[in-house]
Amino acid sequence: MCGKNDLFCPWYKRNHAAMQWDTRFAARTAYMKRSTIREILKLTARPDVISFAGGLPAPEFFPVERVQEAVDLALSERGQVALQYSTTEGMPELRELIAARLSDARLTISPDNILITTGSQQGLDLIGRVLVDEGDRVVVENPTYLGMLMAWRPYALRYIPAPTDTDGLNVDALEPLLQQKPKLIYVVPNYQNPGGFTLSVERRERLVQLLARYEVPLVEDNPYGELCFSGSPRPSILSIDANNLGISTPDGHVIYVGTFSKVLSPGLRIGYVVATEQVIDKLVQAKQSADLHSSTLDQFITYEVARDGFLDRHIAHLCEVYRERRDVMLAAMERYFPAEVSWSKPDGGLFLLVTAPAQVDTTELLAEAIKRGVAFVPGADFHIDGGGQNTFRLNFSNARPDLVEAGIQRLGDLLKEALAHPVK
Amino acid sequence: MCGKNDLFCPWYKRNHAAMQWDTRFAARTAYMKRSTIREILKLTARPDVISFAGGLPAPEFFPVERVQEAVDLALSERGQVALQYSTTEGMPELRELIAARLSDARLTISPDNILITTGSQQGLDLIGRVLVDEGDRVVVENPTYLGMLMAWRPYALRYIPAPTDTDGLNVDALEPLLQQKPKLIYVVPNYQNPGGFTLSVERRERLVQLLARYEVPLVEDNPYGELCFSGSPRPSILSIDANNLGISTPDGHVIYVGTFSKVLSPGLRIGYVVATEQVIDKLVQAKQSADLHSSTLDQFITYEVARDGFLDRHIAHLCEVYRERRDVMLAAMERYFPAEVSWSKPDGGLFLLVTAPAQVDTTELLAEAIKRGVAFVPGADFHIDGGGQNTFRLNFSNARPDLVEAGIQRLGDLLKEALAHPVK
Repeated sequence: MCGKNDLFCPWYKRNHAAMQWDTRFAARTAYMKRSTIREILKLTARPDVISFAGGLPAPEFFPVERVQEAVDLALSERGQVALQYSTTEGMPELRELIAARLSDARLTISPDNILITTGSQQGLDLIGRVLVDEGDRVVVENPTYLGMLMAWRPYALRYIPAPTDTDGLNVDALEPLLQQKPKLIYVVPNYQNPGGFTLSVERRERLVQLLARYEVPLVEDNPYGELCFSGSPRPSILSIDANNLGISTPDGHVIYVGTFSKVLSPGLRIGYVVATEQVIDKLVQAKQSADLHSSTLDQFITYEVARDGFLDRHIAHLCEVYRERRDVMLAAMERYFPAEVSWSKPDGGLFLLVTAPAQVDTTELLAEAIKRGVAFVPGADFHIDGGGQNTFRLNFSNARPDLVEAGIQRLGDLLKEALAHPVK
Repeated sequence: MCGKNDLFCPWYKRNHAAMQWDTRFAARTAYMKRSTIREILKLTARPDVISFAGGLPAPEFFPVERVQEAVDLALSERGQVALQYSTTEGMPELRELIAARLSDARLTISPDNILITTGSQQGLDLIGRVLVDEGDRVVVENPTYLGMLMAWRPYALRYIPAPTDTDGLNVDALEPLLQQKPKLIYVVPNYQNPGGFTLSVERRERLVQLLARYEVPLVEDNPYGELCFSGSPRPSILSIDANNLGISTPDGHVIYVGTFSKVLSPGLRIGYVVATEQVIDKLVQAKQSADLHSSTLDQFITYEVARDGFLDRHIAHLCEVYRERRDVMLAAMERYFPAEVSWSKPDGGLFLLVTAPAQVDTTELLAEAIKRGVAFVPGADFHIDGGGQNTFRLNFSNARPDLVEAGIQRLGDLLKEALAHPVK
């Protein structure tokens, strides 16, 4: 027999082979879970499923040749720099370009107000690290963006849901919520994910007055704003807030998060945060410890593609094709969806939200939908008040027009059946 | 006069223009600070300064043409995939390649044991997120790696310094430290930063026995191991631990962190973590919220460059040129440094550590050194026991051989003066 802790005892070896990892994880991991959408996407990867579930840009419009030219230029002229470590803040030329793109007659943004991030997801992650403490209150639109919920989950925040309608966040209902002294407000003002709604300019103006009155910071997450199908983009809350404060710099209440993922390529993972320098300084410290800096080469590519007007022409093209896809989907929905079902009619972006009568549970519906070869994202997870079980999100940007008709017809049939024979 | 909180009052507007951000930051930001080295590097960017301070690979050896070929292939054959969102775990082909590179006769690593990260800095960040709670004890080599200290700073850990010598971590001194029940042990086993020392195989074997006896996890951070100037690389602690447990899979006590930054390009930000699946699963969840995934294009490039043996030839070349640079530096040090000064003689990697007599304060020395056009990193920050004020780190990989002589001579003069006329 072997003695206790005898490392050369075969029994000891066999029975102490694996660490008991379960008991070793940090307490905050209890709040972590895999993204529901990413798990659904795995199920819908079957080629026979027409999926409206993802949030992907249409890859057939990626400017592959232009990216190739940009890489050629970056590597041939500055290869030793493009492959080397770079500053945490990001490539100076790219920060200048973003500053210029976001500046307007009323607002002057300096490169010092900008931090390049590894996608806008990292922007949200870093903002969480430097601004929220465990258990803080945060006001969010209801429904709200899952990526934010995921990024801030380790902090066990107390979310305060603010109601929304076709004009976005209901600002009238916001003031009583601010009396609960939230640490910050989080808003996706344009073509919201999943709601598809856009915050009206009039509401933006009243919103920034509340920011000033209650001295509460606001995170403006704007991944979709440039995908504007008609008219011109609305001024940012960042800009309206500065104007309300009588200043022409981004030194007010707003931290703005942007990205090239939806207008150029998500695979390059280049996003950015715009804020007053004091906030950028803290975010830089957090980013140093998170990943030192974002890919130097991908920053070079983004800069080269964006710098001479190509990106603006490309965005105009994307708006055109995505608008067509939205129209095809809306027309099919009119034809095939039962009268009791309603949906948002977004004027840009990638998504719309469908609302079925209260008795329909869209999580249950999804299982049947996948069997019939169509997929969506059930709305419950986006709603932080326990509601939304009767809603679901559809993506139109990556839906091939020739398949939309068939997919929407399948969904319409399913909705009609669910209404005729409600499942318990 | 305007009333209180009158938003249209010019006085109110002017005096409430800026948020009081100071009071809004999360408590954990108190532990954050900018990297000392990055701040020193800004000072040493002057062209007349011969800098041994950075930790950069030599950019003149970046395989720019080969990267260009890899991009051409990725974009021409799979452009729509290379620019699209991808999985959090990372490109399957790249994970397979890494698994094969790290597997050996005794250890079989599966792609499921691998997570691709945005540089190895993100590996450290994610490990911190999923494994350490505020105030946990962590055993580290003294001196230790600053990037780890930076990554885990928000957790206000209690570090337990383990002594080191020319054979690395002193394993004999480790056992009493483990009785303090640390959450984990952090080790850079090969060509350590800043020490330049390497953990002997005999010590690795005794170390894994302690891991089994105390059931303590170990993070093996190995960015430099492939830059091996003579002989063949030592087996990883990951492999020796599995062997000790009688298993052939990485399901023991070790989480291994690797990177392509030092052997291919740091600008691409491609690192990886190897661990048992249960740990990888938690890290994947943390990475989803951190940045969704690492750059798809940069993963494609890394895979293409590494897959057909080019990378191994490239690493062999790097070892040759870095060994030459080390030799030039060591020879110059022999010539110009005073006899009272000693230094490590690393058999690989990028760094060596110089130890001056106790009365020399290298932080004070740096100010004078920069005036005379030479720079290094003072050792105090690497030492977590309050010591090391008389040490400093030199980088040889990015030191141009034609300048090393002059730089080391200036440093030698300075050291001689400091010993002759000690500054108070």
